[in-house]
Amino acid sequence: TDKSKVNFANRGMTLEEDLNITNQYYLDHDLAVIHKKPTPVQIVNVDYPKRSAAKITEAYFRKASTTDYNGLYRGRYIDFEAKETRSKTVLPLKNFHDHQVEHMKKVKSHGGICFIIVKFTVSREIFLLDAEHLVEYWAKQKSGGEKSIPKAVIENRGYLISQGFMPRIDYLAIINRVYF
Amino acid sequence: TDKSKVNFANRGMTLEEDLNITNQYYLDHDLAVIHKKPTPVQIVNVDYPKRSAAKITEAYFRKASTTDYNGLYRGRYIDFEAKETRSKTVLPLKNFHDHQVEHMKKVKSHGGICFIIVKFTVSREIFLLDAEHLVEYWAKQKSGGEKSIPKAVIENRGYLISQGFMPRIDYLAIINRVYF
Ligand SMILES: [Mg+2]
Ligand SMILES: [Mg+2]
Repeated sequence: TDKSKVNFANRGMTLEEDLNITNQYYLDHDLAVIHKKPTPVQIVNVDYPKRSAAKITEAYFRKASTTDYNGLYRGRYIDFEAKETRSKTVLPLKNFHDHQVEHMKKVKSHGGICFIIVKFTVSREIFLLDAEHLVEYWAKQKSGGEKSIPKAVIENRGYLISQGFMPRIDYLAIINRVYF
Repeated sequence: TDKSKVNFANRGMTLEEDLNITNQYYLDHDLAVIHKKPTPVQIVNVDYPKRSAAKITEAYFRKASTTDYNGLYRGRYIDFEAKETRSKTVLPLKNFHDHQVEHMKKVKSHGGICFIIVKFTVSREIFLLDAEHLVEYWAKQKSGGEKSIPKAVIENRGYLISQGFMPRIDYLAIINRVYF
């Protein structure tokens, strides 16, 4: 019906938008200090018009060498990457690249908390999966294995994040349970 | 002499460039995972030409809501802002803004290690100063106090960072001493 369409539209935010609102909630309530990193851009040309703001007129997107989000929670370093997929059955590994996975390995080895947040957009389920599993599947893929992580593996080894109004994607509840 | 000028030129890198090289050294030697955050840019218009990379044709610089650098060292969250000044006697507070100082307060209260790295470009001295002192001077300024932190205070309460070839600005040596 039209009504359900409207409701769907209301909920049609990307995972990134919902996470940004969630992080703002955590910040406002003094629960955690976690931010999205700005999109990395290579700036080639800038105009400096009189009496108005500098205008970037030529720039290109660069590949991120780290992850989307990092910050601080209960004294611990937190680092994660967020991914959406329209697949109902797998998370394709093509959504990641070498530098990111290397970064996540380093974070784990230096004592940080590192994971991915995966949204299956069709079922709207959102999972937290520790980075070690991504690292494992990434290595397998390199030696000729699967090009994706099965959803069943994510359900098994990961944690379903409960969704609500405030906060929208309460991943700190999972972190409390799993890492502390 | 000309010779000294050449040497000076060789050393004419900005604090930010030197810190980026230092962080890369720390990363390559698996000592720490600390990165500069990308410059925040508000993207207004993007062209998608056939057969070549997306080109940003209109964008503007945004004010950073956090600090320049963050990451992970010996299991601890690290966060800092780097500033250069040509003044011989003070660090002007106009180099900072409210959001940054608020962010630094939050980092400290959540158990992170937070400081500023200040370079006096004339003397070439570089100091690490814990964020609590910036917070103190920031509050004083708001109630009508000085608009800068005297260099003498930075010398007293901060730590001179030794400079070398590799790593260039060895601030982890100070962190080891002060925070562990
Ligand atoms: Mg992402
Ligand atoms: Mg700076």
